[in-house]
Amino acid sequence: MKQLEQKILDEGIVLGENVLKVDSFLNHQVDPQLMHSIGQTFAKLFEAEGITKVLTLESSGIAPAVMAALLLQVPLIFARKRKSLTLKDDLYTEKIYSFTKQEESEVTVSRKFLNAEDRVLIIDDFLANGDAALGLACIAEQAGAVVAGIGIVIEKAFQPGRDVLIQQGYRVHSLARVASLSGGKVAFVAEPVAQASSND
Amino acid sequence: MKQLEQKILDEGIVLGENVLKVDSFLNHQVDPQLMHSIGQTFAKLFEAEGITKVLTLESSGIAPAVMAALLLQVPLIFARKRKSLTLKDDLYTEKIYSFTKQEESEVTVSRKFLNAEDRVLIIDDFLANGDAALGLACIAEQAGAVVAGIGIVIEKAFQPGRDVLIQQGYRVHSLARVASLSGGKVAFVAEPVAQASSND
Repeated sequence: MKQLEQKILDEGIVLGENVLKVDSFLNHQVDPQLMHSIGQTFAKLFEAEGITKVLTLESSGIAPAVMAALLLQVPLIFARKRKSLTLKDDLYTEKIYSFTKQEESEVTVSRKFLNAEDRVLIIDDFLANGDAALGLACIAEQAGAVVAGIGIVIEKAFQPGRDVLIQQGYRVHSLARVASLSGGKVAFVAEPVAQASSND
Repeated sequence: MKQLEQKILDEGIVLGENVLKVDSFLNHQVDPQLMHSIGQTFAKLFEAEGITKVLTLESSGIAPAVMAALLLQVPLIFARKRKSLTLKDDLYTEKIYSFTKQEESEVTVSRKFLNAEDRVLIIDDFLANGDAALGLACIAEQAGAVVAGIGIVIEKAFQPGRDVLIQQGYRVHSLARVASLSGGKVAFVAEPVAQASSND
């Protein structure tokens, strides 16, 4: 997605080899027009999949995911992060390790909002090692739902997340694929035409 | 806002005299079409105020606030909740007590995203005692910005939040004003025509 790549080049801040800060338009300050375009792109990519719910993780996933849900005309569910839980009877739960925060949190979704008839589109802001997306997929599958696709705003293609998800059989679309953050510069993955169906 | 009141009557769950659960459409599962209508309503209410930024608090404020920001064509900032901070030089911070969670958290916004030229619209999902809205207003004012309005999705009018905010001189609009949760039932504030300019 050229508009997103340009925004990353203009405003992204590279903090070392692994960390790209995009807090001016995605995960602290948010550009709502860009989020709408991102939502349109996700909706178009997954419109044939019969999506019934969009699932994301609080907080940074919510803005792009609510736009995708708006345009797919389905509900959004944002999974909640909690430290520890005593009562779990009515919740699907999964432990997720955050690469950015280097801590584990318990992620939960109320059982009443996901069921075996659902075809779920998972949306997240970043893909690094794949832990968040895998955790959300596990929650959907606990409900007996089908994970019909995974949409990522920014993929760090030099980390193993995409391969992990593809090996598990998931369909993954990333709107910007960062090949490298070396030398303080963002380089994107060059997209051969032959791979266009799975990389956007 | 009639559509919102009807949704609360249809799907809200009353848990005691003080707690209204709306996790089927606002703060866990989210109805994106309703969020868009809410955003339209806020945009219309505050369009004459010269808003330059929408400010909310993660996580439940993000969905309605990003729609308001989309329609006002300005950036959204969602303030971050953190447990404790060591480095604060580049952050505006404020302590906020959560009525729902009964705990205090530190709320932060990066200094680079708010300044003295900003006219800020604060959006939040609930108004109870006013602590979250006041905390966000304090953050905007730390930046020298003007708080041009406070937009609330659901106000619990039997709690003091609105009075606290009005006494501080803020313009407050709530889209649904709950008068009472007694007997397990939601009753809304009846709106005399004369008060229509400040209560929607």
